[in-house]
Amino acid sequence: MTSLMRAEIGEQPEALRRTIGELLPRTPDIAALARETRQVLFIARGSSDNAAVYGRYLVESHAGRLATLAAPSIATTYRRRLDLSGVLAVAISQSGKTEEIVETLDWAADCGARTVAVTNGAGSPLAEAAEVALVTDAGAEIAVPATKTYTTQLAALSVLGLGLGADVAADDLRRAPDEVARMIALTEASAALPEIVEQLARVPGTVVSGRGIAFGTALELALKIKEACYLHAMGLSYADLLHGPIAVVDAQTPALLVAADSGPTLAGTVALARRVESAGAHAFGVGGGPGLAEACSAALPGPGLPEWVAPLGLIVPGQILVENLARRLGIDPDVPRGLNKVTQTD
Amino acid sequence: MTSLMRAEIGEQPEALRRTIGELLPRTPDIAALARETRQVLFIARGSSDNAAVYGRYLVESHAGRLATLAAPSIATTYRRRLDLSGVLAVAISQSGKTEEIVETLDWAADCGARTVAVTNGAGSPLAEAAEVALVTDAGAEIAVPATKTYTTQLAALSVLGLGLGADVAADDLRRAPDEVARMIALTEASAALPEIVEQLARVPGTVVSGRGIAFGTALELALKIKEACYLHAMGLSYADLLHGPIAVVDAQTPALLVAADSGPTLAGTVALARRVESAGAHAFGVGGGPGLAEACSAALPGPGLPEWVAPLGLIVPGQILVENLARRLGIDPDVPRGLNKVTQTD
Repeated sequence: MTSLMRAEIGEQPEALRRTIGELLPRTPDIAALARETRQVLFIARGSSDNAAVYGRYLVESHAGRLATLAAPSIATTYRRRLDLSGVLAVAISQSGKTEEIVETLDWAADCGARTVAVTNGAGSPLAEAAEVALVTDAGAEIAVPATKTYTTQLAALSVLGLGLGADVAADDLRRAPDEVARMIALTEASAALPEIVEQLARVPGTVVSGRGIAFGTALELALKIKEACYLHAMGLSYADLLHGPIAVVDAQTPALLVAADSGPTLAGTVALARRVESAGAHAFGVGGGPGLAEACSAALPGPGLPEWVAPLGLIVPGQILVENLARRLGIDPDVPRGLNKVTQTD
Repeated sequence: MTSLMRAEIGEQPEALRRTIGELLPRTPDIAALARETRQVLFIARGSSDNAAVYGRYLVESHAGRLATLAAPSIATTYRRRLDLSGVLAVAISQSGKTEEIVETLDWAADCGARTVAVTNGAGSPLAEAAEVALVTDAGAEIAVPATKTYTTQLAALSVLGLGLGADVAADDLRRAPDEVARMIALTEASAALPEIVEQLARVPGTVVSGRGIAFGTALELALKIKEACYLHAMGLSYADLLHGPIAVVDAQTPALLVAADSGPTLAGTVALARRVESAGAHAFGVGGGPGLAEACSAALPGPGLPEWVAPLGLIVPGQILVENLARRLGIDPDVPRGLNKVTQTD
């Protein structure tokens, strides 16, 4: 028995190939639009907001610009104008139809920002509202948990980073689709997959942690575990976790730790895994190479990609884990309770 | 049997009175420092980061300036310079000794920002590093869960907002200490307190939600429940909750909903309570007036303060709830497992 979610996970290599092929030539458009700006404001909710967290770290750590995650309620509820001259506003929405996001991008433009949309909805209100639309080509996504629309958003944000002059190589991004295909095969063949599924099926909740460029991946994995498996998944950065919530980790509350195979945040993630294990809890790794795997009770493999673009592959073992865990718990991952595909908030 | 945490909760009216008396005259210093700036960058972790979320909404919704929560790892791990000219950097740390926060404020100054410290540590490295130090006068705090150092941080951030020209009345802030004293008495006399404690003692986790100016209060309550009660508390904004994680709410996962007694986010919070209850789960209110109380299974009273300054009182019933719940669960709230009073992260 397979699910639509599993099928859509498998469509990611092609979806990424198409999206990267279409969007990489758009970097000059980004560069031109951004010329008069000094910083970036991301506007998003849900999985798109987790993609924005990736965009934020990428823009700050590699393109040298301050980046902010917008509070849409300032626009839609408090209805307050801010001075957004010099700001590049980047709104992200899978459907391009979430009214709150369209309204907040319109507000940003009224406040003086230049505007970019990242959406899978060609011709959607969001794509129409922006000066530059980076339209992803994920194809139709039917399962409620976003998979290929999320990873193609990450690809679009990688292109955004390149357009903003990030000190990275576009060839790394071109390698991502093959690497995602490899991740799917590797994860499904991994003995750690059924082991972690069984462990998570027996606990009420888990902490999911990552840092820097991998932090958005941790938040996205936590969101997926909440929405498709109904576990109490608490997404926390490595540093925030140590600032109090580490108390919550115990024999009934394992930690999923996410890291790229290299980069400056890896050592801290390995140290965190050791701390979790020494507290009598299980740490499960996602990526992080042999160093993280060795420090954990069990670990899923990560992509062989440099840190800046690793999130495109790093979520994939997590998606497969969620799909398997949902079915193990008797949940149809395609239609979690209480959710619709296009979410309207105000 | 009482705890240090309970004693420190009771010291808040006096701590707030002293702090407000000392800091309100400093608004001209803030105004002078901020004159050449256009936006605010908050630098914090843990409870201080939840205070920063309050500061962020206050500055945007009432002082009309863009505000950003910094990612300290850009400074301390990625070691990347950003252009922070025109930025007012506000670092918040109870002790003033957390190296990551001091280092990030120094980095911000190097990048061109003007600098403010909010700390309870007079003469601490953070107070020394900033151009303007707003030193709170909470007195020594011994219990690990921050209470009076947190509410006095909120008072300092209210003063920051006034210094930045927020369209609010300082007299509202002057009323906060009396209102906190009233909150403590009201909450402890409330029949809802033992009822909510008993309900939470029987479940593994809870969602904690709020929106806009009350969002930081929801995050702080979630943090306290994790660190002092070891429950899986998931702090989420109202809109993010509807964007997926609403699936996690069920008979074993109630929602704590936090709101001021008035303001533009109240109606949405009441609607969320109704949605949670109609899904067969319990919603418990904190504040939000009779409208929220009526929509919830049980509710704790909130302060009679306008929304902009309500968070100073709104966390207080939550603190009392946490202290009672910890003892009900056999946990010493003063010394949760795995935590120290001054947290060092890198």
